[in-house]
Amino acid sequence: MKEKGELVEGMYTRVHPQILTDFVVAVLQKFNVPKEDAEVTARNLVKADLRGIESHGVGRLKRYTDGLKNGVVKTHPSIRIVRESPVTALLDGGYGLGQVVSYKAMNLAIEKAEKNCVGLVGVRNSNHFGIAGFYGLMALEHNLIGLVTTDTRPLVAPTFSKQKLMGTNPICVTVPTSGKGFVLDMATSVAPVGKMEVARRIGKRVPLNWGIDPEGKITDDPEKIMKGALLPLGGLGELLGGHKGYGLAAVVDIFSGVLTGAIWSAGVGETQGPHPANVGHFFGAINPEAFMPLSEFKLRMDQFIQSLKLAEKMPEAEEIYIAGEKSAYTEDIRRKIGVALDFKTVEMLKQLSAETGLPYTLGN
Amino acid sequence: MKEKGELVEGMYTRVHPQILTDFVVAVLQKFNVPKEDAEVTARNLVKADLRGIESHGVGRLKRYTDGLKNGVVKTHPSIRIVRESPVTALLDGGYGLGQVVSYKAMNLAIEKAEKNCVGLVGVRNSNHFGIAGFYGLMALEHNLIGLVTTDTRPLVAPTFSKQKLMGTNPICVTVPTSGKGFVLDMATSVAPVGKMEVARRIGKRVPLNWGIDPEGKITDDPEKIMKGALLPLGGLGELLGGHKGYGLAAVVDIFSGVLTGAIWSAGVGETQGPHPANVGHFFGAINPEAFMPLSEFKLRMDQFIQSLKLAEKMPEAEEIYIAGEKSAYTEDIRRKIGVALDFKTVEMLKQLSAETGLPYTLGN
Repeated sequence: MKEKGELVEGMYTRVHPQILTDFVVAVLQKFNVPKEDAEVTARNLVKADLRGIESHGVGRLKRYTDGLKNGVVKTHPSIRIVRESPVTALLDGGYGLGQVVSYKAMNLAIEKAEKNCVGLVGVRNSNHFGIAGFYGLMALEHNLIGLVTTDTRPLVAPTFSKQKLMGTNPICVTVPTSGKGFVLDMATSVAPVGKMEVARRIGKRVPLNWGIDPEGKITDDPEKIMKGALLPLGGLGELLGGHKGYGLAAVVDIFSGVLTGAIWSAGVGETQGPHPANVGHFFGAINPEAFMPLSEFKLRMDQFIQSLKLAEKMPEAEEIYIAGEKSAYTEDIRRKIGVALDFKTVEMLKQLSAETGLPYTLGN
Repeated sequence: MKEKGELVEGMYTRVHPQILTDFVVAVLQKFNVPKEDAEVTARNLVKADLRGIESHGVGRLKRYTDGLKNGVVKTHPSIRIVRESPVTALLDGGYGLGQVVSYKAMNLAIEKAEKNCVGLVGVRNSNHFGIAGFYGLMALEHNLIGLVTTDTRPLVAPTFSKQKLMGTNPICVTVPTSGKGFVLDMATSVAPVGKMEVARRIGKRVPLNWGIDPEGKITDDPEKIMKGALLPLGGLGELLGGHKGYGLAAVVDIFSGVLTGAIWSAGVGETQGPHPANVGHFFGAINPEAFMPLSEFKLRMDQFIQSLKLAEKMPEAEEIYIAGEKSAYTEDIRRKIGVALDFKTVEMLKQLSAETGLPYTLGN
C-alpha cells in the first residue's frame, strides 16, 4: 500500500507531527485561546494531516485565527449543558472553536455509554470541528462504537435542484476490533470540495458526475462546479442513487442541525465570519457490552473483516480495504517521516509566525 | 406527482389492501402461524405493496410459506430477551418469521425511548423482515426518531472485489414532522435486486454502473449481473464514491449481524431454506424531547423540509422531493384504488388458495 493523501500533485515540506502540534498550540495561545483548548484543536488539525486529509488539516489554521481575531469565534466560550438525561445531552458551544466543545461532547457521550450503555450528545452554537474521525477514534480508545455527524456550509445540491443548499455533511462510524478498528469517515457528497479546489489550482479536469455548473448541467470543470454545486453520493438524479446520498445528507442535517437547535447546512456560515457559523454536531457512543462480551465482539469483528479481505479480487486490484485502513497506514508512516505541508500552508504558517512573533520552527 | 411503483412495465390486477391483508392472514394461519403473528406479517407485506415496493410485498409470500412448510422458519418461535438494560436489548428471534420478532423489537425500542430517551434493540436468529420502513413508521406513530437496519443475503461486491459478499443492506431513518414524516428507507447498493429481476423478465438492459459480470466488468445485462454482483452506492471502484456505499453496507452488517450475534450478509441464507437464514436486525428509537420540546422539533423539521422543497429546481424537474414523500403519496392513492399485483403474484396466490383450500377472494 502507498502512503495516501490529498497532496498527490505538487511539492510539499515534511514536518514532524509533534513539532507542528506545538507550533499550532503556540499560535492559538497567541490569539488568547487557553492552553488546553489550543492543544485539542491542534491535535485535531494535525490528525487530519497525519491521516492524509489535508483539506481539514493545519492548512485551515488561518481561517480559525481570522475568526478568533474578529470575535466571530470566541476564545473563552461559555459552554453549557442545555438538557441532560443519563443517556443524552445537548450542549451549547458558546460560539467557541468547534474542536473544544466537540471534545467535551464526545467525552460526555463516552462517559454515558460506559455507565449506561449509550450516550448521544448534540451540540449547537459551534464552529467547524475539523475531521469527524478524530472524535470517532476517541470512542475506540474506550472500546466503544462511535458515531459522529456535523453539518457544514452549503455546497451540495439536493436531487433535482441546481442550488447548493446542503453541506458535504460527513458521517463517521467507528467500531472496535483487535486491530486499529473500523473507521468510516465519509462525506455524503460524491467527492469532497477539497479535491475540486486542488484540481482548480493545478488546472485539471475532474471526473464527470462530481458536480454541476450553475445551470445544473454535469461538467468536469472544477471552476464551474465551484460556482454551481457538488452532487450527493450517487450523482445526478435518481438513476445511480443520487437521492440516497441526498437522503443521507438530510439525515446529517436533521441530527446535527435540526435536533440540536443549531442551524442546518443552508444557513451555516464560514469560520472566519462575518456572522457566527452556528454549526451543529451530533456524537454517539454505544457500548458493545450491552449486547455481548467485548472479547467476543472483537473476535466477531475480526472475523467479519477477514471475510471481506479474503473476497475474490478484481483482476487489477491489489487489495480489498476496510474503512479507515488506508488512513491508519498513512498515519503510521507519517508519524515516522512527518506530515506533508503544501507551499501555500507553509507560507500561511510563516505569516502567522511573523504576525504573532513566534519563531518559525517548521524548517524551510 | 404520479403513483410510484416497481411495476412500471406489464399488466397487473388491483386489489383492495384490506382484502389482500385478510387473505394473507388466512394463508399464514393455514400454515400454523398464530393469528396475531400472521396479522403483523400480512400488514408488513401489504405495506410494501401500498408504498410501491412490490419486490418486498405479497409477491414474496410463497418464500415464507415454503420456509414454514419445511420447518426452516418456525411457526411458534421461542422469542427471548438475551440481554437487557434500560436503553438496550438483544432479542433471539427463535428462527420465526422476521416480521414477528421485529415488531416486538421495535415496540421494545419505542417503550425504552419513551421512558428513557433512547432504545436500541438488536435481533439474532431471525428471517427476512420485509421492508425496513414498516418498523421506522412505527416510531413515527409515537413521535420518535426511528432507525432500522438489517443484513440480507449476499448480492453486492465490496469495492475492488468481484464477489457478492454483502447484502443490499438497507438503512432506514424516520423523523417526525407535522406531516407524514421524513422516511428514508434505502438499500446501500446503487439499485435493488428487484429491478434487475424485472429487467431480466422483460428482456431489458439496465443502466451502466448498477452491477458487474462474474469477471468484475461493468455490464448492462441484468442476466450477467445476477450471476456477477450488484455494486454498492457510488458504483465501481472509488472514483464516484463506491467505497462509501461499501462502507455503509459494512456498518449495516456490523450493527445487524456482528453486534447481535446473528450472521453477517456473507452467510445469510434464503427464507425458504434449506438452512436457517439467521438474519440479524437492529432497531433504534430516539426521543426528540431529550433535546427540545416536540412541538419545537416538529416546527424546525417543517422549516427544514420547506427549505429543501423551495430549492431552485433543475430546468426539467417538476419537484424537489423529501425522503418518503413519493411512497406516502403512492400509499394514499393505493388505499383508494387498491394495490397492484403482477400476474406472477396472482398465479402464486391462486396456487396457495388451492393448496390451503381457502376461497380465492382477490378477483380475477
